[in-house]
Amino acid sequence: MSRERLIVIGGDAAGMSAAAKVRREDAQREIIVFERSPHTSYSACGIPYLIGGLVEETEKLIERSPEVFRDQYAIDARVRHEVGAVDPARQRVRVRDLATGEEFDEAYDQLLIATGASPFCPDLPGREGVGIYGLSTLQSGIRVQMALAEERPRQAVVVGGGYIGLEMAEALVRQGLKVSLVQRGPQVMETLDPDMGSLVSESLRRVGVILYLAESVTGFETKGGRVRAVVTDQRTLPADLVILGLGVRPNSEMAAAAGLELGVQGAIRVNSRQQTGVAGIWAAGDCGETYHRVSRQPFYVALGTVANKQGAVAGINLAGGYATFPGVVGTAVSKICQYEVARTGLQEREIRALGLEFAAATIKTRTRAGYYPGAGPIHVKLLAERGSGRLLGGQIVGMEGAAKRIDVLATALTAGMTVQELVDLDLSYAPPYSPVWDPVQTAARQLI
Amino acid sequence: MSRERLIVIGGDAAGMSAAAKVRREDAQREIIVFERSPHTSYSACGIPYLIGGLVEETEKLIERSPEVFRDQYAIDARVRHEVGAVDPARQRVRVRDLATGEEFDEAYDQLLIATGASPFCPDLPGREGVGIYGLSTLQSGIRVQMALAEERPRQAVVVGGGYIGLEMAEALVRQGLKVSLVQRGPQVMETLDPDMGSLVSESLRRVGVILYLAESVTGFETKGGRVRAVVTDQRTLPADLVILGLGVRPNSEMAAAAGLELGVQGAIRVNSRQQTGVAGIWAAGDCGETYHRVSRQPFYVALGTVANKQGAVAGINLAGGYATFPGVVGTAVSKICQYEVARTGLQEREIRALGLEFAAATIKTRTRAGYYPGAGPIHVKLLAERGSGRLLGGQIVGMEGAAKRIDVLATALTAGMTVQELVDLDLSYAPPYSPVWDPVQTAARQLI
Repeated sequence: MSRERLIVIGGDAAGMSAAAKVRREDAQREIIVFERSPHTSYSACGIPYLIGGLVEETEKLIERSPEVFRDQYAIDARVRHEVGAVDPARQRVRVRDLATGEEFDEAYDQLLIATGASPFCPDLPGREGVGIYGLSTLQSGIRVQMALAEERPRQAVVVGGGYIGLEMAEALVRQGLKVSLVQRGPQVMETLDPDMGSLVSESLRRVGVILYLAESVTGFETKGGRVRAVVTDQRTLPADLVILGLGVRPNSEMAAAAGLELGVQGAIRVNSRQQTGVAGIWAAGDCGETYHRVSRQPFYVALGTVANKQGAVAGINLAGGYATFPGVVGTAVSKICQYEVARTGLQEREIRALGLEFAAATIKTRTRAGYYPGAGPIHVKLLAERGSGRLLGGQIVGMEGAAKRIDVLATALTAGMTVQELVDLDLSYAPPYSPVWDPVQTAARQLI
Repeated sequence: MSRERLIVIGGDAAGMSAAAKVRREDAQREIIVFERSPHTSYSACGIPYLIGGLVEETEKLIERSPEVFRDQYAIDARVRHEVGAVDPARQRVRVRDLATGEEFDEAYDQLLIATGASPFCPDLPGREGVGIYGLSTLQSGIRVQMALAEERPRQAVVVGGGYIGLEMAEALVRQGLKVSLVQRGPQVMETLDPDMGSLVSESLRRVGVILYLAESVTGFETKGGRVRAVVTDQRTLPADLVILGLGVRPNSEMAAAAGLELGVQGAIRVNSRQQTGVAGIWAAGDCGETYHRVSRQPFYVALGTVANKQGAVAGINLAGGYATFPGVVGTAVSKICQYEVARTGLQEREIRALGLEFAAATIKTRTRAGYYPGAGPIHVKLLAERGSGRLLGGQIVGMEGAAKRIDVLATALTAGMTVQELVDLDLSYAPPYSPVWDPVQTAARQLI
């Protein structure tokens, strides 16, 4: 085998999964990874726990450092190197060493774009103020951690009630800050239907987060370049720390400039092998598009699980093997204050947008046999297609042991099961883990 | 609708699920339930927790009393009434009132046999000794609880390492007894492969249970009618309390005497609507046979989940509706000392008995992200068919959060998924619940 060169742009989940996979399959390949932050292979999902003090050392969030990749994988992982442009015709990338400012070109035989995503911030007055943070990279988490330690902010406003915003609101309460959260919609966690989202809103209020629902941020007040308040369409909220929790956007500008096709939400379009439309260029992770197996449409989601899987698929293909990524069913889970919160499949508005009709059932039961110590409430909502009874989606909010039940629904969705088939599943039962009918089956029984 | 009479023999999970279902569908039906114990609708699975002191009151294990059935469901639930014979030709049952000794015949239009199962005790010398207990009914649990309180036994021997035996061993340790356990096989929990069972053996030793593995009980020493030791093929173990944990046998003698066909392990043969071969007679729960969806063979299992489901199916059919029970995939779960223990599908010896070939993978990982507080070990073993990669079975032993993951495997088995399809599932991930690759997927990745 000739010594071909693979260049990977981005050194987190997708990029490093792919690089490591190629190395395992092909000892000869030259592999260079350019990562603009100082870190490789870290758990971005762990950042709220770092900031909240549940995880004590930053290093614990790093799975493998650049040195490990260099020494154990013979992967030339160069952090603080930013790729600014891709030239598909000449098969080169333009790289800038952020330490020295030096720029240089590097040629590739194959290129994997794994540039991730960035926190979304609408173009509002004052948005450049110091003290306004989005969270995506480990570096961004460390910046917030340092701000907490050095500037001792007392009043935080979280803008947006997605899962990162909510996890951060909880983390900041833990650190003793007064925390407000502004959310445009009627409830937080808009990936749930509002009836389920209201349970999450309530759990945040219970720990002291002040919620401003159905309210829009119109700008930020700054003084001497520092943020001092968040302005909404209804009030001005003093703030010395602002967290953006409005979701992320794929880092796909460079790919677009190189002529690659973009898809949903501006994510890089790929086929199921993670190939872009340009020969030799692949994409994986938060910068790329995926496919929704329930809606049967292109889809965008930024999650570590998906990035890891897509990276592994890209790696196998780049190593000369054959693998495809079949897509997602929309599964996500989070821990918000007292509640475990999970969802999969389609929610009501997604189903309506597809022109489908559905029946819904919501039940409240217990996480364990009622008599077993520690049994707590669990709410399960299921959505099934009218007529066929085919499961379309599920949402769970409940105490310890609630969340991972979503995986049964994710598996059932993947298999195209009906609610009757869900009722018929041979799920496990013992008093410490479940009532005799598992809560997901209790919900399904309402729909048959 | 004419006022037909349904007689149900047995007032626990299957019988009362069916009776309640019929009542909901048919307000007119006359429904009589005969139950020989003093209780209806109780959680037999809760007995070890009652005896171990985790559940404080017996009443908490009772879901609905005979009075509730009488008053709220208009079901004539007669406890302490034993049915001794069924006469299918005359459509009558012979009933004995255990309080008065009075015997009488009762005619039925439809009959549901839901007589449950009884602890197995081999025909060994001394087996009638006082102080030897099997556990099945709530009454049997209360008897052990009373023996503990009144006789203050100090040395217990559990015969057999099935899940009831193990849960009881742990409960008795909690109550301060010295507990030994004799098990014929090389490890406890023979529904797991021995490599996984050995983890459970270890967890029992850690709480102080003395295990005698690969050892057979040959009899019991008694004195004055009371048990004083368990004799094995290798030693004599002093005991003032003996628990039989050798599994159960279906209570099907009366059905056989009435001419009903028996199947696997002497369980009453039924079709998927829970009908026996005799017109008007149905059977459900631990007394009846079921079907294994993975082995595609008739199967016997005594579990509350199955009894509830079969009871509901029988009830729908008895009420004039149409429902079928599609069978089980062999799912079971238990909590044994520090471990959550779960299994589904086929284990190695079951696969071999079918003449199939398989590949196995066992992995050890963590229940949560490694850096998240409370992450504990989890062992997952998967078995997949050679060539096709079709999942055949799974076993899980691990700390908190481990067990219910078996439900993903049970769902995947039901759908006939391959290990590749398992890897491709969109399972949930957040640091408090899982590593980024769920442990079941980490195991599946070893098999592709």
